[in-house]
Amino acid sequence: MPQRIRRIAITTGGGDAPGLNAVVRAAVLSAKRRGWDVLGIRRGYEGLLDPEKLVQLDRESVRGITHLGGSILGATNKGNPLRWPVKLPSGEITAVDRTPEVVANFHRLGIDALIAIGGDGSMRIAHALSQQGLPVVGVPKTIDNDLPGTVLTFGFDTAVGVATEAIDRLHSTAEAHERVFTVELMGRYAGWIALHAGIAATADVILIPEIPFDIDAVCRKIMEREALGRHFSIVVVAEGARPVGGEMVFQQRGDGPSRLGGIGELVARQIEERTGKEARNLVLGHLQRGGSPSAFDRVTAQRFGAAAVQVVADGGRGVMVALDPPEIKTVPLADVIDKLSLVPLDCDTVKTARDIGICLGDSWEERGVW
Amino acid sequence: MPQRIRRIAITTGGGDAPGLNAVVRAAVLSAKRRGWDVLGIRRGYEGLLDPEKLVQLDRESVRGITHLGGSILGATNKGNPLRWPVKLPSGEITAVDRTPEVVANFHRLGIDALIAIGGDGSMRIAHALSQQGLPVVGVPKTIDNDLPGTVLTFGFDTAVGVATEAIDRLHSTAEAHERVFTVELMGRYAGWIALHAGIAATADVILIPEIPFDIDAVCRKIMEREALGRHFSIVVVAEGARPVGGEMVFQQRGDGPSRLGGIGELVARQIEERTGKEARNLVLGHLQRGGSPSAFDRVTAQRFGAAAVQVVADGGRGVMVALDPPEIKTVPLADVIDKLSLVPLDCDTVKTARDIGICLGDSWEERGVW
Amino acid sequence: MPQRIRRIAITTGGGDAPGLNAVVRAAVLSAKRRGWDVLGIRRGYEGLLDPEKLVQLDRESVRGITHLGGSILGATNKGNPLRWPVKLPSGEITAVDRTPEVVANFHRLGIDALIAIGGDGSMRIAHALSQQGLPVVGVPKTIDNDLPGTVLTFGFDTAVGVATEAIDRLHSTAEAHERVFTVELMGRYAGWIALHAGIAATADVILIPEIPFDIDAVCRKIMEREALGRHFSIVVVAEGARPVGGEMVFQQRGDGPSRLGGIGELVARQIEERTGKEARNLVLGHLQRGGSPSAFDRVTAQRFGAAAVQVVADGGRGVMVALDPPEIKTVPLADVIDKLSLVPLDCDTVKTARDIGICLGDSWEERGVW
Amino acid sequence: MPQRIRRIAITTGGGDAPGLNAVVRAAVLSAKRRGWDVLGIRRGYEGLLDPEKLVQLDRESVRGITHLGGSILGATNKGNPLRWPVKLPSGEITAVDRTPEVVANFHRLGIDALIAIGGDGSMRIAHALSQQGLPVVGVPKTIDNDLPGTVLTFGFDTAVGVATEAIDRLHSTAEAHERVFTVELMGRYAGWIALHAGIAATADVILIPEIPFDIDAVCRKIMEREALGRHFSIVVVAEGARPVGGEMVFQQRGDGPSRLGGIGELVARQIEERTGKEARNLVLGHLQRGGSPSAFDRVTAQRFGAAAVQVVADGGRGVMVALDPPEIKTVPLADVIDKLSLVPLDCDTVKTARDIGICLGDSWEERGVW
Repeated sequence: MPQRIRRIAITTGGGDAPGLNAVVRAAVLSAKRRGWDVLGIRRGYEGLLDPEKLVQLDRESVRGITHLGGSILGATNKGNPLRWPVKLPSGEITAVDRTPEVVANFHRLGIDALIAIGGDGSMRIAHALSQQGLPVVGVPKTIDNDLPGTVLTFGFDTAVGVATEAIDRLHSTAEAHERVFTVELMGRYAGWIALHAGIAATADVILIPEIPFDIDAVCRKIMEREALGRHFSIVVVAEGARPVGGEMVFQQRGDGPSRLGGIGELVARQIEERTGKEARNLVLGHLQRGGSPSAFDRVTAQRFGAAAVQVVADGGRGVMVALDPPEIKTVPLADVIDKLSLVPLDCDTVKTARDIGICLGDSWEERGVW
Repeated sequence: MPQRIRRIAITTGGGDAPGLNAVVRAAVLSAKRRGWDVLGIRRGYEGLLDPEKLVQLDRESVRGITHLGGSILGATNKGNPLRWPVKLPSGEITAVDRTPEVVANFHRLGIDALIAIGGDGSMRIAHALSQQGLPVVGVPKTIDNDLPGTVLTFGFDTAVGVATEAIDRLHSTAEAHERVFTVELMGRYAGWIALHAGIAATADVILIPEIPFDIDAVCRKIMEREALGRHFSIVVVAEGARPVGGEMVFQQRGDGPSRLGGIGELVARQIEERTGKEARNLVLGHLQRGGSPSAFDRVTAQRFGAAAVQVVADGGRGVMVALDPPEIKTVPLADVIDKLSLVPLDCDTVKTARDIGICLGDSWEERGVW
Repeated sequence: MPQRIRRIAITTGGGDAPGLNAVVRAAVLSAKRRGWDVLGIRRGYEGLLDPEKLVQLDRESVRGITHLGGSILGATNKGNPLRWPVKLPSGEITAVDRTPEVVANFHRLGIDALIAIGGDGSMRIAHALSQQGLPVVGVPKTIDNDLPGTVLTFGFDTAVGVATEAIDRLHSTAEAHERVFTVELMGRYAGWIALHAGIAATADVILIPEIPFDIDAVCRKIMEREALGRHFSIVVVAEGARPVGGEMVFQQRGDGPSRLGGIGELVARQIEERTGKEARNLVLGHLQRGGSPSAFDRVTAQRFGAAAVQVVADGGRGVMVALDPPEIKTVPLADVIDKLSLVPLDCDTVKTARDIGICLGDSWEERGVW
Repeated sequence: MPQRIRRIAITTGGGDAPGLNAVVRAAVLSAKRRGWDVLGIRRGYEGLLDPEKLVQLDRESVRGITHLGGSILGATNKGNPLRWPVKLPSGEITAVDRTPEVVANFHRLGIDALIAIGGDGSMRIAHALSQQGLPVVGVPKTIDNDLPGTVLTFGFDTAVGVATEAIDRLHSTAEAHERVFTVELMGRYAGWIALHAGIAATADVILIPEIPFDIDAVCRKIMEREALGRHFSIVVVAEGARPVGGEMVFQQRGDGPSRLGGIGELVARQIEERTGKEARNLVLGHLQRGGSPSAFDRVTAQRFGAAAVQVVADGGRGVMVALDPPEIKTVPLADVIDKLSLVPLDCDTVKTARDIGICLGDSWEERGVW
């Protein structure tokens, strides 16, 4: 029989994603309806080490936030309790495991369950806390859609929508100026955003991390279009795309590649050199992760928030809620950590791209690959 | 072994839906890549009775249409070959079955397969033609999302997005004017649009056909908000919503209820009478089915178009492509006709609505229903 | 030399308009920068009769409201101090002039100036208070753009944008369904919204109050298009449009025409009867006056708010700020009340509509009128 | 008495701007209504040197283009007839004046007037042709709004809207991540876009070319916000902004600064160094000049197109149509060339920015400057 719940805590960790506030509001309202007390942990897990970062959440504190970007709890992770940075007397920085403190605070505060909203890093911490006996329910958050265990999560649809609208805008200018545009989109390990936005906005080339690209194949596509009288092309480049045999070119900078010399710019330069056509690069960057969530993301986020509370009420722990349309289900946290959900090369979306003539940077027709 | 395909035909039937053109383009490009000839049948099935309505479709004819609403083939059904209206010498109108003519024309024109994009009516015709031996592959089209066999289809996401944006706009005015707004959305038999848009835009009440509503429960919710100092409410009403024990109030008018005295207006009048608060009604109507498709709908539509061609190539017939995220699958046409996909009352989306305090027009808490 | 200002009050009156909050915030910030105290009067002028409706406004109270629709002060006018409804012992309702009370409260509260944001009704009250010696500066607010003295004001651009987007959406459906759509837009006395949105969205017919329409001219235009193979038409109808020799058909209902039997519906019915083509009507209603203001309206609103404070600081009174692009100027309140700014029939915008083939409901070419 | 017109030509020159197609369509329809023949000159003036670049324009060729970005005539200038590049036998490139050829072709083709839509470069050519006796009417096109003689022109409103929406999106992420965002907007010489979008989206700092900035003033503003508990800031930077005593940092690259090391990035780096806060830069680039025009821009563009034809009909020549709201007027081409319309430092919009607390990069309060 599930334990009687009196108080839960909620945390949002990692980078911003449209829908965070919608999850928080739905979870708070669902919990209050059950008569529970709800604590919000500000700034990721830091709040469980510093009780000043805790706030009471009630109906009033979550009013009117569903459609707002950001998170009322803040999305900044100032520290990972698994590896908390500590300065040694020698001046050296080392990392200590502060999860025992988290667990102690958790009990001292009378928290019966934790709802942890976040990405792979947050899920790893959630799993660790869970293994130390804390009842934790995760809610997946990833713009890139690369978290395993869930078909989709909130934030992705908004990111794809923003990117699609941007590419739509570039189309007319590309055509009027007879130019190539490269558009660098998010997706360090997985090409979901680039693939979906590229198909939605009818890009001519889509380069994703899962398919190392051959710049010659890219330029061939551009010149084929030229020969057909289409003097412009749109090349969508996931930030983690890389040439065959090449390295990923971005330098990590907190939460994004350096804007200087990202892969989109490199591809643009190569196209200019090889085809003689003018090429311009656009980096959409944070436009993809901020702002008001789409209707789809708002619904998904609220379903997740309510489902997480239901799972807590049912005594679930050590699991993450997940979308298996049209259902919400749960998956063990152990099954989602340290893994990535990449674009399967034989999925119908990849086939669709190829079938409608989009170049994915390889020479699949020659090689007989789908 | 699948038959060798040389020529296919494509038709779009029934009302407009954002994404029709994206399906057509993806199907045409996929077919041309395989070297097939493609005929477009204008104005639904009429074209198979009147060859003047046939057009050749090639890469150029589908250029730049992915993001456009409407259908380059027209969405008007001027006649159902199963029950074609004929004027008898007496002046009376009767209906004849012209499918044998369709079949004959089909063979005469050397069409090896038909891709039929449409709603329940179109799928019924597709099934009938299929039973007479024509190789038909269906593509589901329904704004209301009430076609069975597929978790989702194109057009729905755009409709939900448009409705959500409209309700967002009304919110501030409702609050500033201390008023109730009823918003009548599409959904004659199924409340999917109302449920999703209502949750996304944080409506206070959502009335759907699946849950006959008690106007007293609705007014109670509005007055509870009043007591909390929230002097406004948003009531989302699916056009097929009806009171407990009541009839559906709309009068059929081609493809929509009469704008005069629809259910939204009736609910607004009742609220005004019973609560004394000003209430205004807004009927979104065709705004929900026109215009540029969302990124999600563009991707889904193109996946369907490409998948339908793949099914044809693989020798499939008598089936409809369907979305079972993240996969595309097929279902027999026989399994989807004469059925409706209604909102299950125990689905997590309905529970989410209840959990976050949205009134669904019933008194579930008192009655112990979820 | 201008009087030294210590405290001002701000009120927003009349219906909602996108940009009200932007005016309030800009005025508050501009006043605080000058070290003034600012009182917000809730619910129109009611607050000057009921001091409980007064709120202190500071930087924090106007934080993050620029892009929000509605008004943090409420837009409901519960009473006009010039004609305050009072119940006589006989039960009869009469109206008394409570402006002396307003003036007394004004002095008692130490208010040095009033910034009154509102439409024609609010400007009339502002003028009356001004004549009784109160230093009042008006800020024009009108969705319909029919206030004289200012070329444009905030709210109009957003309304035109929303209407244009809606008509864009209808276009594809009208074409796919081979139908006529009438779209009823705001504009009881002046056709500015209909004219601008109709031109922006390439309507085929635009009916405005300034040009009584001949339904035969409207139907002729539709049939001319039919003859050219364009089997659809978009007819934009201002709510105040009326047939030649006819009456305005709307019944006043607070702030909008009755949704039942508005002029748009009547025009649609007439078109159906006379042309035999299917016609559907859409009433955009409050979608035009709610929600987030456009960038243009946000800038204009903030310029007005800051300018009003500047005028107060400079000792101006009895004036309204106005836009005379690219400048902000002031006009005497006496010059703007009891007047309407109608669409001049010989303005270049009307000529543009005619030149590009839009029917304005008359037979100007035959009659040699421009 | 104006000459009888039989044939006109239309050209669109310079970079893309939302509304070009709307001008073209309105001009073509207005001309056809008068029974004129219309030639479209593809690719700027090149078409008057190469008659293969000429196309007949009629009602059908301009159908449905009002809301499309780009230009059906192409926006690429491949050559300026005033200084046409010619390769000498020595291999050296020199420039020759080919305007006599243009004039000769003009007469040979029986063109009675030229409508030249373009920016400062195009107006200079238009003026030169006009001085050689060709009847030319200009239509101003500039995203940056820096063309003199007209209060506004089409394209600017769309650019401001796109930029405002982008900054809105960044706001929530900036706040959630407690970060500074710099956003580089168009405006090489004039800061109109940055000023308007910055005010609309409530930026904290706006840097424009007209006010050389002091990085210390910028950082002071950011730290003042920090002290108030607002741990994020939005800094809008026009691409032509430069530090006090500094040079403009962009390197010209056709139609835009190099994306590597633009001024936005430099400001972000300086802020990081001086405040210790994380700063990220976003370059909106071509998103500001592509895509569907706003309702305002569509109306303005069509008014310009129709007005240009009217001016031709009235015998006007050597002039540019201009917006002097609410009127359209004409100004001599001689008065607009070789000049820039910069943001006046004492205009009310600049004062508004200062009044509501936006830092413009200087220390105006200390210096007693407005």
